[in-house]
Amino acid sequence: MSEDTTIGRPGQRRRGVERRREILDRAIEVFRQRGADGTSLRRIAESIGVSHAALLHYFDSREQLLVAVYDHAAAKRAEEEAAHPVEPGTEEMIAAAIANVEVPGLVQLYSTLVAAALEVDSGVGKEYFTSRFERLRAELGETFRSQQAEGRIRDDVSADHLAALLIAASDGLQIQWLLDESVGLSDTLRTFGRLLQAPRAS
Amino acid sequence: MSEDTTIGRPGQRRRGVERRREILDRAIEVFRQRGADGTSLRRIAESIGVSHAALLHYFDSREQLLVAVYDHAAAKRAEEEAAHPVEPGTEEMIAAAIANVEVPGLVQLYSTLVAAALEVDSGVGKEYFTSRFERLRAELGETFRSQQAEGRIRDDVSADHLAALLIAASDGLQIQWLLDESVGLSDTLRTFGRLLQAPRAS
Repeated sequence: MSEDTTIGRPGQRRRGVERRREILDRAIEVFRQRGADGTSLRRIAESIGVSHAALLHYFDSREQLLVAVYDHAAAKRAEEEAAHPVEPGTEEMIAAAIANVEVPGLVQLYSTLVAAALEVDSGVGKEYFTSRFERLRAELGETFRSQQAEGRIRDDVSADHLAALLIAASDGLQIQWLLDESVGLSDTLRTFGRLLQAPRAS
Repeated sequence: MSEDTTIGRPGQRRRGVERRREILDRAIEVFRQRGADGTSLRRIAESIGVSHAALLHYFDSREQLLVAVYDHAAAKRAEEEAAHPVEPGTEEMIAAAIANVEVPGLVQLYSTLVAAALEVDSGVGKEYFTSRFERLRAELGETFRSQQAEGRIRDDVSADHLAALLIAASDGLQIQWLLDESVGLSDTLRTFGRLLQAPRAS
């Protein structure tokens, strides 16, 4: 019986999916504490207590594992956020940025993967982050467009530009803050929200 | 005669500085074309046509070489920009961002080094980028403060927050643009400039 047939059996397949999730859950804990830190697939396997071969059974490469870890962490975060909804748009981005920097290892993983996605030969990472940015811009752009239509934010600027700017500013500020906490992450992002309103008389 | 004494002789020292600059000039060309792409110190040495030992004579580690390459490229860029001055503040940042993405390998090198600087054990990179961000924020904050005093941009927001926001937005947008050119780098950054003015009547 070939490996593929074995994997194809419903019970086995389900157990495979569960095992994969279990590995990702444990990997997130490792990254929470330490970040990617240039670790090899072998060292990651050791840290989460599975064999190197087992890891390669579920993930083709180090990059694929790391992207899966980031994606799994982002999905868990989205679930938590759905349970405590905040106002969409700037406030939501501020809440997400604050939650991110509480887990420096994951910001570091994200930054490392995005940098790797810029490499000419990048595979799974380039696709993943290109479509992730596209989806985020589309969602946030839609939110800003609605807020413009409701007269809640200024409408003399492109909602799509605002979305790209806020996503970029949030990514960049998390990095600046992790290097130097005097930057003031939420205050600075709140200033972006202020810019979406007409100036107060001085 | 010890190595240190040899290096300390004026003629030798000068030749050492020249050789170091020569290595950095050649390394920049390699990165221009290919980015860091996870290359080892040995492969970098091969690409620029010096021995691995020679490279280790001038740079203690791969990270130190890469930071020196980035710093050397940034210094050259600053010289070029000084020859073609544009308006300080947002316009200057737009010009710099456009110049950056014309050399994707250097944006990728920058992003990789900044991500590595977030690692717990990061050495030279953490110091370098922490003080680089600090200096950039201080300079741009000063520019925005002057423009506020002259009544050229809105003054109901912190000039220091604007500086941190624009630097973060520029870094983040260069990445988004390299992954997807439909983002519109200069248009989007110009929208940031627009936000510093009162809204136009709609």
